[in-house]
Amino acid sequence: MNERIGELLAPTRLMLTPGPCSVDSRVYRALSTPMVGHMDPFFIGLIGEVQTLLREVFQTENKFTFPISASGSGGIETAVVNTLEPGDEAIVCVNGTFSERMAIIASRTGSTIHRAEAPLGHTVDPDDVRRAGKGRKIKFVGVCHGETSTGVITSLDPFRKVADELGALLIVDAVATLAGVPLDVDKQRIDICFSGSQKAISAPPGMAPITVGPRMEELLANRKTPVQSWYFDLTGVMKFWGKERTYHHTPAISLIFALREALRIVSEEGLAAGWQRHRQNQQALIAGLEALGLELFVPDPNDRLPTVTSVRVPAGVEEARLRRQLLDEFGIEIAGGIGTLSGKIWRVGLMGYSSQAKHVLLFLAGLEKVLLEQGYHAPAGAGIGAAVQVYAHVEAVSAGGKK
Amino acid sequence: MNERIGELLAPTRLMLTPGPCSVDSRVYRALSTPMVGHMDPFFIGLIGEVQTLLREVFQTENKFTFPISASGSGGIETAVVNTLEPGDEAIVCVNGTFSERMAIIASRTGSTIHRAEAPLGHTVDPDDVRRAGKGRKIKFVGVCHGETSTGVITSLDPFRKVADELGALLIVDAVATLAGVPLDVDKQRIDICFSGSQKAISAPPGMAPITVGPRMEELLANRKTPVQSWYFDLTGVMKFWGKERTYHHTPAISLIFALREALRIVSEEGLAAGWQRHRQNQQALIAGLEALGLELFVPDPNDRLPTVTSVRVPAGVEEARLRRQLLDEFGIEIAGGIGTLSGKIWRVGLMGYSSQAKHVLLFLAGLEKVLLEQGYHAPAGAGIGAAVQVYAHVEAVSAGGKK
Repeated sequence: MNERIGELLAPTRLMLTPGPCSVDSRVYRALSTPMVGHMDPFFIGLIGEVQTLLREVFQTENKFTFPISASGSGGIETAVVNTLEPGDEAIVCVNGTFSERMAIIASRTGSTIHRAEAPLGHTVDPDDVRRAGKGRKIKFVGVCHGETSTGVITSLDPFRKVADELGALLIVDAVATLAGVPLDVDKQRIDICFSGSQKAISAPPGMAPITVGPRMEELLANRKTPVQSWYFDLTGVMKFWGKERTYHHTPAISLIFALREALRIVSEEGLAAGWQRHRQNQQALIAGLEALGLELFVPDPNDRLPTVTSVRVPAGVEEARLRRQLLDEFGIEIAGGIGTLSGKIWRVGLMGYSSQAKHVLLFLAGLEKVLLEQGYHAPAGAGIGAAVQVYAHVEAVSAGGKK
Repeated sequence: MNERIGELLAPTRLMLTPGPCSVDSRVYRALSTPMVGHMDPFFIGLIGEVQTLLREVFQTENKFTFPISASGSGGIETAVVNTLEPGDEAIVCVNGTFSERMAIIASRTGSTIHRAEAPLGHTVDPDDVRRAGKGRKIKFVGVCHGETSTGVITSLDPFRKVADELGALLIVDAVATLAGVPLDVDKQRIDICFSGSQKAISAPPGMAPITVGPRMEELLANRKTPVQSWYFDLTGVMKFWGKERTYHHTPAISLIFALREALRIVSEEGLAAGWQRHRQNQQALIAGLEALGLELFVPDPNDRLPTVTSVRVPAGVEEARLRRQLLDEFGIEIAGGIGTLSGKIWRVGLMGYSSQAKHVLLFLAGLEKVLLEQGYHAPAGAGIGAAVQVYAHVEAVSAGGKK
């Protein structure tokens, strides 16, 4: 036996990263349900329930709505490799790491990928997509609804319009938005939409819920070449999740148990109530951050993603040291920037179970303390004071509403 | 809220399928450890421990030894897409569904895949590989160590020899064998070896441990084209699991906690003791099955995979009905045949936590009961009697050995 590796003694964290977020104890209970087989009649029934709950959260009637056995990045790969065949052209809107990831993955298919780009912290101009597609046969327009790397949300409707003009499918990365931000797959006519289990759905990471619309189903049926990935080939995976219930690969059964419970919680709260909670907690967070004199990275309030708030690291403060202090002293994890934003911003996730007033207040209190220790001075208690004002107002409004 | 989908009320199963198997309660406890981030210093330390434990079970010093965030089939895809470039040629030994899966996945890369085939229930002749490779530049020889679909084990050393003659890499699918059957990656000079978390390691499904030898590392460094899959691109994933610990995708953190605990259990027992336990329980199972007058599907005892035993469905017995009865009356799940073997065989998995004498005896007792109800007569208690004889002998030997 390996003597060095002992009992698992994990610290307790409050997850305020852009995923994974903290998880409700009900979900852990479901996660540790004793094993059943993926072909067990009980499990075959259960995956139908998971699909029903996923349709509810995606707001779709799409038959093929199910979790891919992979992280959100596996969702990106599934969406693009199933759509593209060699020689195709597509346009990806790039305004951060995750939207760029879609372009990178797509370019590994032998297709030509055009990028419509925007500076970090901003949204892509739909006219740039229009221009990129002019005179070309475009298979899909890809948009990242919530760009986790910068905290930017993109309005989908203008891109649906451009995609229609180009005769293209619309692929939407909703990893950071599903269940946290208004999204209606059927009404917004999204052809493929995918997410991650560990974001606003608040299950553990490892699953990428996806939904495939009728136009995409048709495209799959008419492909001329096999999908280059066997693991992510929707026609294969759909045989398990569809009517046939034929074995394809062994899915992560425990994670599906957990996903089901997390989706039940989303359903119990109601989508609209959940969206409002995410928005309100972010408003309190933003009020607190600004009262501390910090500058948000996304200048236009309309572009700010409710689930992930990015804030500039003030001069004189060491980015990583502050995060480490928050972790060690308060057990709070937030994220730094990635790529060119490394060292320049913090990213605070308020998603799913993590999006609660008590978490916002504890974070602002801890942040004030560790900022002060790095010599950054703000009026004492200003962050908490501003956030409390937001909550007091919200409470009053909602108490009034209940009368 | 969706009123139809209530509390998760799962049945308790004894998993005697070829995976997933039943899971130790210690592993469930680890699985439900509250969430931490994938970049948390605690987790960064923990993944080093998981790598140490995986090196122990693979018996390797390979630096790049880690779990892929996917099922075992994702392990196959990782192995082949990282190795092959357009225009390459490779040979896959095909003697069942999972070895054929490697050939199918490999053929989606634009490479030419030659098959060396054997009838179901038999092993491929290394000379067929030799012939297939003659005068060709072969990138790899792929072998499925334990063919789960038929219950056949293949000796690896002759294939290493042929691969050496051809100047090819050796890729080994150890999904059904790792931790259950002798396997020594370094001594047997396997260039890429992968497995699944839900087999003899006895963790929940969703991870595919993989190990990459020095020749494969070199090949990766010298690739001319990018790996067609971004998600399974080893050079990217290795940046997270390697020294850099750079973010690639969000791994299934809960499953990694569980995998760590399951590997600790494997390490505590010791590899040799575990292999012996798997062999002994299968011997008792086989003695019981034969005493019931059933015929094993794999004729040559040397070809029988210790972790998965396949047995022919006797005339007059309904295959699926019997399995359903075992499930409903005893909570025992076994598997049927897949592909052309559907309806013709049962597959009984004795892997990891499931490989225990009490499980073998309960299964044989239940099987006798449900066979009898379908009009299949065997001498009463013959199966149990024969298995008990095996165990009594083993106990005597091991008691003698302790003196």
